[in-house]
Amino acid sequence: MKLLNVDLGERSYVIHIGAGLLQEAGRLFAEKGIPHRSPLMIVTDRHVAKHHLAPLRQSLEAAGYRVCEAVVEPGEKTKSLDMLNSLVATALENGLDRHSTIVALGGGVVGDLAGFLAASYMRGIPFVQVPTTILAHDSSVGGKVAVNHALAKNIIGAFHQPLMVLYDTSTLSTLPEREVRAGLAELLKEGLIWNREFVHWFDEHAEALLALDADALREALYQGCKVKAHVVSQDEREGGLRAILNLGHTIGHALEAVAGYNELLHGEAIAIGMVGAAKLSIRLGYPEAETVYRETKRLLQKLGLSVSIPAHYDTEAIMSAMMHDKKFKEGKMVFVVSPEIGRVEIRSDIQPDWVREIIEQLKRED
Amino acid sequence: MKLLNVDLGERSYVIHIGAGLLQEAGRLFAEKGIPHRSPLMIVTDRHVAKHHLAPLRQSLEAAGYRVCEAVVEPGEKTKSLDMLNSLVATALENGLDRHSTIVALGGGVVGDLAGFLAASYMRGIPFVQVPTTILAHDSSVGGKVAVNHALAKNIIGAFHQPLMVLYDTSTLSTLPEREVRAGLAELLKEGLIWNREFVHWFDEHAEALLALDADALREALYQGCKVKAHVVSQDEREGGLRAILNLGHTIGHALEAVAGYNELLHGEAIAIGMVGAAKLSIRLGYPEAETVYRETKRLLQKLGLSVSIPAHYDTEAIMSAMMHDKKFKEGKMVFVVSPEIGRVEIRSDIQPDWVREIIEQLKRED
Repeated sequence: MKLLNVDLGERSYVIHIGAGLLQEAGRLFAEKGIPHRSPLMIVTDRHVAKHHLAPLRQSLEAAGYRVCEAVVEPGEKTKSLDMLNSLVATALENGLDRHSTIVALGGGVVGDLAGFLAASYMRGIPFVQVPTTILAHDSSVGGKVAVNHALAKNIIGAFHQPLMVLYDTSTLSTLPEREVRAGLAELLKEGLIWNREFVHWFDEHAEALLALDADALREALYQGCKVKAHVVSQDEREGGLRAILNLGHTIGHALEAVAGYNELLHGEAIAIGMVGAAKLSIRLGYPEAETVYRETKRLLQKLGLSVSIPAHYDTEAIMSAMMHDKKFKEGKMVFVVSPEIGRVEIRSDIQPDWVREIIEQLKRED
Repeated sequence: MKLLNVDLGERSYVIHIGAGLLQEAGRLFAEKGIPHRSPLMIVTDRHVAKHHLAPLRQSLEAAGYRVCEAVVEPGEKTKSLDMLNSLVATALENGLDRHSTIVALGGGVVGDLAGFLAASYMRGIPFVQVPTTILAHDSSVGGKVAVNHALAKNIIGAFHQPLMVLYDTSTLSTLPEREVRAGLAELLKEGLIWNREFVHWFDEHAEALLALDADALREALYQGCKVKAHVVSQDEREGGLRAILNLGHTIGHALEAVAGYNELLHGEAIAIGMVGAAKLSIRLGYPEAETVYRETKRLLQKLGLSVSIPAHYDTEAIMSAMMHDKKFKEGKMVFVVSPEIGRVEIRSDIQPDWVREIIEQLKRED
């Protein structure tokens, strides 16, 4: 098991990464001082519940906890105020009080939803994240929790740090292959923004990661979480530095919005977005940007990911989605660009026309 | 104008109290550094809008702000996730971004709702409170914001401190007389828990307050806010001390729950609850408790408030509502009691039977 401390002053917490942590949950909860007198509530989705709910529940109950559960439908649509309303009813019916802890068992959707439940129930109670996807390494560091509105994604939320994170790499074996690839793309992103050595390591271990080798996963999740934890600890409320984590997200979010939430996985959209950001960096004249572009593309393709925008996506619809994104300041386009591998910059002087051109090019990328 | 600083470190803010502040809002916003580039959104209710929306809006617009508005129905029912959903739509449609400020113009309902909108929109944007009721002196200090759930009041919320509070005493002249009396009861509560001299002052100025004399109101709101600010600044997240603010609230909340939200005003319920707390203090054997009881009752009656529980309220329903209240620890009843005027204690050893008896007595109180 590897431990990573996310340093946020009195809101600091530890990420535990290793195989078999679900079975250790009860002991770890007790060691963390989570009280036994108030019930816990596990929030998970139907797919994850099938494989991982029973062992987690058993471990917690064996340690003397009273546990209730809420099993939601998988998918972005679950992240709604309606679902929050329903989870609050479940919490009240099961007597959750201020000393209760919410346990988010699942990927980013469950983490966001259960995290916002914890942030807002009785004005905030603790929660523990138990991520079951690779992508969730991202949402499990930083405390950003939210639900969607019909008009915008993640628009209603909070910053609410977990009490701890239990990252059981064994749970990743039940992930569909497509989600593995997409999750690895987002892990690679952490290297691309901050850690050149991790990118080299990633290159060498891509096959092991795709094969879900436990040691490789533990190391990769540790390194990925470490980058994010480092950035977040310097900028908890997203004032500045934290924006570098959005490499690939400006185009990526727009693609997700145009695709509808189910056609493209988040990591797949971000993968294309990172290639776009590299192309933009070339355009901006950074001498190393060609290398960034070539390597980003090669590594993503090594993971089996597409780096081109599906040709039927409407360019103007993508542009328009970007204009509605939160990541714009005073009408100008803000972009995270990649001057070299392991380092990014935030540019706020990006001409929409350059981006339009790159989107067109990405449709022909291969 | 009187200024009161609420000392919460980097979340500190100033409460401005005085006549005519609506007309000063634009200037005060600009002085506070609220940016002009992003739109403001005023949230208010239909009753308040009639009298006070236009002057506030004009003042803000005259200072160069773009302003949009959302006018909701008055009453507790408005504090819902559905309404939050609708306000988020309004915010998005009007282009509110992270630099926008929400302006809560109204009483506690508007403050709670608009405050939770501000706490959760884009994971938190600033808000300014412009209270238009006496009771709102309470909700305008402390940052507690929330909406209701069908099963529980104020159960979904956050701690979110305003950027500043503009308390225009002129707006109080449009309050129905019943709300004036109820609001004054809650102001008196601040004295009863913390400031014996303010209780004496209150006694001497009760007529002036009922007549909405501007000087008397300014002083009373200042003193009331000061008590609350002092307590909150020592216990922002309601860990301990802050509970003393709940004098009268254990019984009061239960009465509200049994009455339905419209039959008893909050201040009316708290008034009865404070008399109940004084009776409980006598039962606990505090030597000065008889005086507390007599004075509390006399002052509330001077304000024209009833101090008895309507006879048709079911005692067991009241008891049961108390058992569901958040203010219970491990099954025991927690009560704020009044050993002497200007000082309270929190007791967690209260027998339900004592409370039952007092509720029966309060039905015969006159």
